[in-house]
Amino acid sequence: MPRVVVDVMLKPEILDPQGQAVANALPRMGVSDVSAVRIGRRIEIEFTGEPDLERAREIADKLLANPVIEDFTVRLVKADEPTEAHS
Amino acid sequence: MPRVVVDVMLKPEILDPQGQAVANALPRMGVSDVSAVRIGRRIEIEFTGEPDLERAREIADKLLANPVIEDFTVRLVKADEPTEAHS
Amino acid sequence: MPRVVVDVMLKPEILDPQGQAVANALPRMGVSDVSAVRIGRRIEIEFTGEPDLERAREIADKLLANPVIEDFTVRLVKADEPTEAHS
Amino acid sequence: MPRVVVDVMLKPEILDPQGQAVANALPRMGVSDVSAVRIGRRIEIEFTGEPDLERAREIADKLLANPVIEDFTVRLVKADEPTEAHS
Repeated sequence: MPRVVVDVMLKPEILDPQGQAVANALPRMGVSDVSAVRIGRRIEIEFTGEPDLERAREIADKLLANPVIEDFTVRLVKADEPTEAHS
Repeated sequence: MPRVVVDVMLKPEILDPQGQAVANALPRMGVSDVSAVRIGRRIEIEFTGEPDLERAREIADKLLANPVIEDFTVRLVKADEPTEAHS
Repeated sequence: MPRVVVDVMLKPEILDPQGQAVANALPRMGVSDVSAVRIGRRIEIEFTGEPDLERAREIADKLLANPVIEDFTVRLVKADEPTEAHS
Repeated sequence: MPRVVVDVMLKPEILDPQGQAVANALPRMGVSDVSAVRIGRRIEIEFTGEPDLERAREIADKLLANPVIEDFTVRLVKADEPTEAHS
């Protein structure tokens, strides 16, 4: 069954101290070619029937993201097209 | 410039109370066809040069995910193939 | 009006990669005397009437914490005894 | 050994959709006397020697909180005065 994925990220102009902490920890791991790390949320919504993007967008807008500081995107992910497909 | 996206989700057998809270709040919004909500993290990693999936996987394993309770996937996202492409 | 504060922390035996990332980033800030950083959640619950610790505990158990991987504590914080009192 | 606790909460004027989701889920649990729920972070910092509040404040300011959208407080918690003392 397909599911809806909502990705929520801080707006680009909003500082992300947690991502900054990860970025700053990398040199100690020998990693020096990362310029930025941003940490957001990924929410998976499963519907009992047909996934409803419009409905998911409404849920995201009210309960998942803060539109003042965050951007979100809503998309369908097919069951036979796993999210790790590109890895 | 392409970037690497790491998606971190609680393993399916681990309870997700925050997702549960969202799911339980939906009937009051008139939404009755959602069976489950799971909340994870989405991390975007930008490299100064060529994105390095292997390196990103190592970072995820050490600083982004807890392998005992979480699963993660690592993938490339092209700049001209925005994540909202499917929305 | 007093409020109830729920503190949720990962159990001591559960790895906390986000706290680890902060700890690993500190040497670059010139901080070398921190042995551990743990990141949890702090939830403030306001009641319309008398704060109800028992009720708050029930809410925490069902919607705020995952008892398999997290511990939580519930306590009253008086309005005239701000949380920053000890800083 | 005492430790330093940093509490990070969204500023009062910033919407907290995750807290809102918990608040909206409560009526289904039979809870009708909660007026607001706010979800923040609680960070515990352990020092190898004497806990250093000033240092902790600096860490919070750079790696734990986003001063544009969040407030934080820093305080000492004694080992023999557990955080659950008031519960």
